[in-house]
Amino acid sequence: MKDKIIGILGGMGPEATIDLFARIVKHTHAKKDDDHLRIIIDNNPKMPSRQDAILKGGESPVPAMQETARNLERAGADFIIIGANTAHYFYDDVKDAVHIPVMHIIEEAAKETIRIVSRVKKVGVLATTAAMKTGLYQKSFEKYGIEVLRIPEDVQSQVQNSIFTFKYEGCTPKVIEMMAAAARHMIADGAGALVMGCTEIPIILEKMEFSVPLIDPNESIALAAVQYAKNQRTL
Amino acid sequence: MKDKIIGILGGMGPEATIDLFARIVKHTHAKKDDDHLRIIIDNNPKMPSRQDAILKGGESPVPAMQETARNLERAGADFIIIGANTAHYFYDDVKDAVHIPVMHIIEEAAKETIRIVSRVKKVGVLATTAAMKTGLYQKSFEKYGIEVLRIPEDVQSQVQNSIFTFKYEGCTPKVIEMMAAAARHMIADGAGALVMGCTEIPIILEKMEFSVPLIDPNESIALAAVQYAKNQRTL
Repeated sequence: MKDKIIGILGGMGPEATIDLFARIVKHTHAKKDDDHLRIIIDNNPKMPSRQDAILKGGESPVPAMQETARNLERAGADFIIIGANTAHYFYDDVKDAVHIPVMHIIEEAAKETIRIVSRVKKVGVLATTAAMKTGLYQKSFEKYGIEVLRIPEDVQSQVQNSIFTFKYEGCTPKVIEMMAAAARHMIADGAGALVMGCTEIPIILEKMEFSVPLIDPNESIALAAVQYAKNQRTL
Repeated sequence: MKDKIIGILGGMGPEATIDLFARIVKHTHAKKDDDHLRIIIDNNPKMPSRQDAILKGGESPVPAMQETARNLERAGADFIIIGANTAHYFYDDVKDAVHIPVMHIIEEAAKETIRIVSRVKKVGVLATTAAMKTGLYQKSFEKYGIEVLRIPEDVQSQVQNSIFTFKYEGCTPKVIEMMAAAARHMIADGAGALVMGCTEIPIILEKMEFSVPLIDPNESIALAAVQYAKNQRTL
């Protein structure tokens, strides 16, 4: 059976798209060029802000996201992955715009969580306050019977401050400690796994160890895309 | 003036395409998502080997390269860059297949050499024996009045052995020393700059210092593409 062509709806932001592309190539286990997968990427950073649209009623990114998805379909992609968690708030609109399947990054993270931690009941999600407010994680994980832990506001503030301080000051001990404290709180509260819902978090927590597995949705979707493209799994 | 959309004809191999994509994003100096450039990538590793076609009369990669270039044009690319040096052996065929400009990686390296080393007369090229045999470097640099140093066979063998040993054994002291010895030979013979004609070489020579500048064509084309896309230069 022929390998499928992967389409990446990217550019939100470009660094996350590079990371996703690199992970797909890494996971392909190619011995020669031809074993590698054809990947068509539309890295389109010229889309209205997803955050502004969700939180402030700003211009909708839907038309641009749909146009980009259609562009990938026309260019020959057999299925699409979207390289950004928050953008999945508009998942249904993108899905409806094309005739090819669109994989869901957070649902793939949920499926991976189940594979890694069997009988997992609850997960903790480390993500921006805006991302948490979308209800995206709750919706996707509940579909697989997993509860997303509700955390006190001060713990959510630690996560938020860690992410934004990281953007300006880099990976300082304070940044790491804020994120680690929030993670430990979630584990104490019964989280069987931690979902890193923001591309900065795997970098912040790189050297920390926890008693539960850390799930990186970018890694989950990369693995899922390779397996589906290689016809080793269904959707 | 609107930013141009970059098309990358990639996949030869995918790692070089990731590297090129990452360099373009790095050089864009974006303060927000929207400052970033739209980049459409067709990472197509399913093309007949360029090396086999050039050296052994194997199946021509031209139809697949042309189809991929046309795909980028249809998807909206305003110009194309090809993320592989040796593939430029087929540059004219790709250029003829589309109505948009195609930048030439080795000519961009030649232009950058002139910018960095004014009045440069000769360069040394570190590349595989196969790449040297194509005459690509000679042709492109001569167009800009720069001679490519002719080197003895034993020096070319050192370059070749360094690259292939690196592929199997990694960046050992022996790998570095073989490449550095060839580089020093070229400098002693009058090279005013060294062109790293293979993606492995910047990694091999990372910690070495030489009395002349080292030119990385992947870096030259990334910079050229960003400036052209941002309408800061002509072709």
